[in-house]
Amino acid sequence: MAPQSKLDQVISLAKRRGFVFQAGEIYGGSRSAWDYGPLGTELKENIKRQWWQTFVRGREDMVGLDSSIILPKTVWEASGHVATFTDPLVECTSCHKRHRHDHLVENFVTKKKREPVDGMSEIACPDCGTKGQFTEPQMFSGLMKTFLGPVDTAAGMAYMRPETAQGIFVNFNNVLTASRKKPPFGIGQIGKAFRNEITPGNFIFRTREFEQMEIEFFTAPEDAPAFFDTWVEDCWAWFLDLGINEENLRRFDVPDGERAHYSEATIDFEYRFGFQGSEWGELMGVANRTDYDLSSHSKASGTELSYFNQATGERYTPYVIEPSFGLTRSMMAFLVDAYVEDEAPNAKGGVDKRTVLKLDPRLAPVKAAVLPLSRNEDLSPKAKALAAELRKSWNIDFDDAGAIGRRYRRQDEIGTPFCITVDFDTLEDQAVTIRDRDTMTQERVALDQVRSYLSERLNGA
Amino acid sequence: MAPQSKLDQVISLAKRRGFVFQAGEIYGGSRSAWDYGPLGTELKENIKRQWWQTFVRGREDMVGLDSSIILPKTVWEASGHVATFTDPLVECTSCHKRHRHDHLVENFVTKKKREPVDGMSEIACPDCGTKGQFTEPQMFSGLMKTFLGPVDTAAGMAYMRPETAQGIFVNFNNVLTASRKKPPFGIGQIGKAFRNEITPGNFIFRTREFEQMEIEFFTAPEDAPAFFDTWVEDCWAWFLDLGINEENLRRFDVPDGERAHYSEATIDFEYRFGFQGSEWGELMGVANRTDYDLSSHSKASGTELSYFNQATGERYTPYVIEPSFGLTRSMMAFLVDAYVEDEAPNAKGGVDKRTVLKLDPRLAPVKAAVLPLSRNEDLSPKAKALAAELRKSWNIDFDDAGAIGRRYRRQDEIGTPFCITVDFDTLEDQAVTIRDRDTMTQERVALDQVRSYLSERLNGA
Repeated sequence: MAPQSKLDQVISLAKRRGFVFQAGEIYGGSRSAWDYGPLGTELKENIKRQWWQTFVRGREDMVGLDSSIILPKTVWEASGHVATFTDPLVECTSCHKRHRHDHLVENFVTKKKREPVDGMSEIACPDCGTKGQFTEPQMFSGLMKTFLGPVDTAAGMAYMRPETAQGIFVNFNNVLTASRKKPPFGIGQIGKAFRNEITPGNFIFRTREFEQMEIEFFTAPEDAPAFFDTWVEDCWAWFLDLGINEENLRRFDVPDGERAHYSEATIDFEYRFGFQGSEWGELMGVANRTDYDLSSHSKASGTELSYFNQATGERYTPYVIEPSFGLTRSMMAFLVDAYVEDEAPNAKGGVDKRTVLKLDPRLAPVKAAVLPLSRNEDLSPKAKALAAELRKSWNIDFDDAGAIGRRYRRQDEIGTPFCITVDFDTLEDQAVTIRDRDTMTQERVALDQVRSYLSERLNGA
Repeated sequence: MAPQSKLDQVISLAKRRGFVFQAGEIYGGSRSAWDYGPLGTELKENIKRQWWQTFVRGREDMVGLDSSIILPKTVWEASGHVATFTDPLVECTSCHKRHRHDHLVENFVTKKKREPVDGMSEIACPDCGTKGQFTEPQMFSGLMKTFLGPVDTAAGMAYMRPETAQGIFVNFNNVLTASRKKPPFGIGQIGKAFRNEITPGNFIFRTREFEQMEIEFFTAPEDAPAFFDTWVEDCWAWFLDLGINEENLRRFDVPDGERAHYSEATIDFEYRFGFQGSEWGELMGVANRTDYDLSSHSKASGTELSYFNQATGERYTPYVIEPSFGLTRSMMAFLVDAYVEDEAPNAKGGVDKRTVLKLDPRLAPVKAAVLPLSRNEDLSPKAKALAAELRKSWNIDFDDAGAIGRRYRRQDEIGTPFCITVDFDTLEDQAVTIRDRDTMTQERVALDQVRSYLSERLNGA
């Protein structure tokens, strides 16, 4: 068997231990989306909470919003998505598979180091290999539609949001009035978005249903470049603070002509996921959306979305700095970054290989595991009572199956920072042994000190 | 002006203070969904966190899941939704509006105390009043569809989930294996669901896009009735613990013939929302779904969804007890229940009317407001520093605009449990005045004790 890449090993662990399941697996599965199992749900939730605390609750100049997924077609016409969120597709007339026209041409150029000379005639279908048998390119929308109301009519057609951002822009006046904030201030939102990707793939990296964490930060136009720089640094710091290795993170200043239709400047953060071909993948981006969105919605809706600065007596349309994070991509990056294989001492005085997720304790899905040394009528109730007590504050595992070494391995590979062993001495000294995931050192801690012991070491999680 | 009902007052407050905005308001608004503003987002999040802690993290016999919104058509065929999640509609041939056929007949029977004699001929269109000019009833699906992939074909058609439950059932084996749980155990999930309601209305009560908090609890068939009873009591206790007045909550044992197609027993919880006409509305339900779902999916997918009990050597298909909460409905109930008008002393020695949301501190969107007595170069930095310090743990407001009495009123009506005034004495005694929302009593607390003072009184929020 070929050695698995680190990415393959992470994916395999994620599936086996219930971080991520294939959506609709018993029906053959869907590549459009993934389901998050017990551990994945906790990890994802912990990432959200850290993000919300750092960028929304923890900041004086930010508030939160939770807008709807389905918005009327008019919103997406005004935002430019109906017109520009499209890709040119061609169909192979031999096998009837569809492909991105621009991708086929790009691949040809990369391979042959020259432009194709006669349209598509030199280009082969990636599916069946037939050359040059393509229809003319047709535009295909990345927006996913649905129908509201008792009949499927054009009037009832609505789009599922391809980004959470537009729900923020259309509520600009509402939030300004209700929250009594004034620029510079921002609105943060976490939520699902949907894009009709032609080729979903790379595990949870590219899916049709995904989650975003987005900030739209409103500022006077002249201050936008400075806030752009600050936000780039703040986002960068967030990933490092939560344990991402700086060597696996890089910035890409998106050049003119390659940015989204609304952006004056974009810096993408790329993470070294270790994909086949290109190792790096986009993790998030910070964009200067200028006044494009507020102006477009003002014009289309007839409602002025602007700010009157009482101090200067001037009205202006704020510029928007947008840090846009992929939540599911962030989760994948945290998993890949935390995955380590090292060695642990075994009972025979030798060493065993172990797999460990060195997740920051704030992100770890299980904060501690309570392990009674053996199934015993004295130990079990003691251990269960401790687990129940700790469960009031944290997600706690309880495991009494198998040798203690094996139980440590099970907790190591899901990133549990602390294992608490309840043994026969516990019945005498009212203390337990707490083992640290990373150092594997053990400490004897009094039962009534376990809560504060964990509390101090879980970084406020 | 006619006196507003309490419900109208709550709705008006919710819109004015930024709990809830109309989705797409600047484009004329949508009745399909609502957007949650800064305070609504925090309140909703706090409800979720309480629910998750009580029913998932805090319980040894529960794990969480977060499955996708979009699932292949086959899932919804197997679940019975494609066949049964439909309503009969008739169209008025005069005004072309559509109505529920069964609702028209029911309304006639209620009003006239008899059945209509000749089909629909006696029944008038509620929109235009024309009598008996209806098309034959046609079945209309409550499922909302979308299309995946490069072309809109029947093969690419998928449904948006009308309940989160099915994502749990199809993952039964995955969770069983990965989490090493065995029945009795349950899986909890919070997430959006979509139903193509013909008549959305009553504010956030009936919308096409909404949020659920669902538990599917798997048990041996013979234990199902006892777990059904326990879950009913646990759910009831949750609402009371978070402050719902028991007088506003009642149970409805749904009789034979009125239950959903999968249910052997259902108890709905109804809350006294105070709607026009019928005061009470459904808040949540507990159903005994039997082995309907696991059996249906086993049959349709060819994957056995069952449990082998090693102790008895028997394999069985678990029964499912389903407590299904409406998240947005719960939020509405908490708001209505907390809304009180009383009196507060004013600066002139008299009393002012005040509106106060007596939300449980765990649910309150803002935990404390820091109020410098006046805008002053000594007080402001002191107050801002305190707010910044507290913001590390909680959602904190800062307000230095207007008379202190007015600022108290603003905090009272959004349910902020504590107002912290920084005054000139603070500069001398390093202490602040903390005012309790409900009792309006004030206490002098040392600056370095504020954190622990709040911590003790926020019930672990």
